[in-house]
Amino acid sequence: MKQREDENGLVARIGRYFKSAQVQSLGLGIGDDAALFQPLRGRQTILTCDWFLEGSHFLRDKHPAEAVGWKCLARAVSDIAAMGGEPRCFLLSLALPDQLTQKWLDEFLRGLKRASTALRCVLAGGDTARHDKVLINIAVIGEVQKGHAALRSGARPGDLLFVSGRLGEAEFGLRQLRNQRGLARATNAAIRKHLYPEPHLALGRWLARNRLASAMIDVSDGLSSDLARLCEASGVGAVIAESAVPGPEGLPEAEARRLALHGGDDYELLFTVHPSQVRRLRKSLTRKSHRGLPISLVGAITKKRKVLLVKDEGVAEVLSPGGWDPFRGR
Amino acid sequence: MKQREDENGLVARIGRYFKSAQVQSLGLGIGDDAALFQPLRGRQTILTCDWFLEGSHFLRDKHPAEAVGWKCLARAVSDIAAMGGEPRCFLLSLALPDQLTQKWLDEFLRGLKRASTALRCVLAGGDTARHDKVLINIAVIGEVQKGHAALRSGARPGDLLFVSGRLGEAEFGLRQLRNQRGLARATNAAIRKHLYPEPHLALGRWLARNRLASAMIDVSDGLSSDLARLCEASGVGAVIAESAVPGPEGLPEAEARRLALHGGDDYELLFTVHPSQVRRLRKSLTRKSHRGLPISLVGAITKKRKVLLVKDEGVAEVLSPGGWDPFRGR
Repeated sequence: MKQREDENGLVARIGRYFKSAQVQSLGLGIGDDAALFQPLRGRQTILTCDWFLEGSHFLRDKHPAEAVGWKCLARAVSDIAAMGGEPRCFLLSLALPDQLTQKWLDEFLRGLKRASTALRCVLAGGDTARHDKVLINIAVIGEVQKGHAALRSGARPGDLLFVSGRLGEAEFGLRQLRNQRGLARATNAAIRKHLYPEPHLALGRWLARNRLASAMIDVSDGLSSDLARLCEASGVGAVIAESAVPGPEGLPEAEARRLALHGGDDYELLFTVHPSQVRRLRKSLTRKSHRGLPISLVGAITKKRKVLLVKDEGVAEVLSPGGWDPFRGR
Repeated sequence: MKQREDENGLVARIGRYFKSAQVQSLGLGIGDDAALFQPLRGRQTILTCDWFLEGSHFLRDKHPAEAVGWKCLARAVSDIAAMGGEPRCFLLSLALPDQLTQKWLDEFLRGLKRASTALRCVLAGGDTARHDKVLINIAVIGEVQKGHAALRSGARPGDLLFVSGRLGEAEFGLRQLRNQRGLARATNAAIRKHLYPEPHLALGRWLARNRLASAMIDVSDGLSSDLARLCEASGVGAVIAESAVPGPEGLPEAEARRLALHGGDDYELLFTVHPSQVRRLRKSLTRKSHRGLPISLVGAITKKRKVLLVKDEGVAEVLSPGGWDPFRGR
């Protein structure tokens, strides 16, 4: 008779998926009280964690378990990209309803393993619990050359403001996904970006290593919210040109612009560059294409601690944070 | 008019509690994409995380928010103690219902700050979310001299088995607390141990540094479950004498023994010692009293991969894991 999975069984099951990925940086993987990690000399350790909760961050009837597995790790790793670091390992905290400990868990682990391999971030340990909804928390440990981390706080008046990729695409994908029947299928690029975001590790690392970015943040909640955070941390303001912010394709202009300013989940990098470095940035970008990832100049940093949006007709208005906020809604 | 707390406000509120505790090991505390941590040379980093969920690990109508704050960190730090390490910093992931973002949160942060100070483990970062129940996840980062960590897997046949303190006390405390009306009051030692467990960092560190413990684990789910894990990891078995396991005081003999074997939440250290080292252990223990913490010899490690319990009358029976398991219940 098949026994109901107990905690040891669950941990063993997770371990089987990740066994081959245990690399030398970990003295010891899952299964002990804690994991051991050997830091490299001259590096700083980067620490970050992220909730991924059913009902808040994903819907069980819409998001395939495999995409949940991919995304929970990818979005946490994006914080490492935003510091200019490299991910090394992660801790998985997983709480599940009883009935999901078989097929759903397998699919989830398949997606998580795929992300773990693609992002070179190995499972180091974790914790399991039972809950009536799926609760996920991912803690990622990364590393960066000492003194090279790109912080949010380094932007200075006069710096120029750049963003990678297109903003609002993931939210456009979410909207389409909500209109599909049943579990989502990645039938276009926007839905794919919502389900399987790819943190820009190479770009972040390159910007940090070459000291090109004076400040950097990943756009996870939306440009209007995350730019405000960067400005707050740096004690500055910013002005951005609405027409310069690259939005999703295939939408009416006004709607595309709204999503570009406030849409969340894109995990693009928003960074500031001192004017003297812009030519170097441009040159290097054309040389190494960063896999064709477009980098757009969207505005500049100002002394006055406000974020202003310049509309097409030249009028500037205050841009209030309108991105995703779990405690406020939209 | 008072605005409803948004995410930035919540993070700022948490930051205020922990500001003074930002120490030099952290290049940077909360408020960036991730935290930076400068590892000491010659050390390994220890990583661990723990769920602390309303309904599973605590009850909102029984456990004071201040005790929830203390305990969520203390129990996660206990995993560092069980490796023989020192805690350095932690990440707090907190999901709350709207109505708890004021008074409950303040009480919670007060307890958490108290634990953070007592355990010398500073807040490095975290994540917040909204949920209809309180969800807590704590990731702790510690350090240990390279090669000195006490693993679960080092026990060898012939090693003697020791445990610190008394087992089953915290569960006895929980039982009394359930019978109190309203929020728990720590009116005796057992309830206090359940609400405010103290990880045995000094003992763990001392055992590891002096290479006295061949294997070590903290008793979080119950002796029967955690001893089985230690044996499994070491590929050995064990025999323990029921009468030698120190149980809670103030209970009928049979009940005290049941709690001592299967009661969870004590965070005592269970460790094995090679016979040649036992005299050294005894001597040192009387010299440095480890604050009067009793250490009891409870059994020995065997080659046969079974855990046997010797009863008073000399009969040995198999001891099955009967401690707390979120996926099985008791």
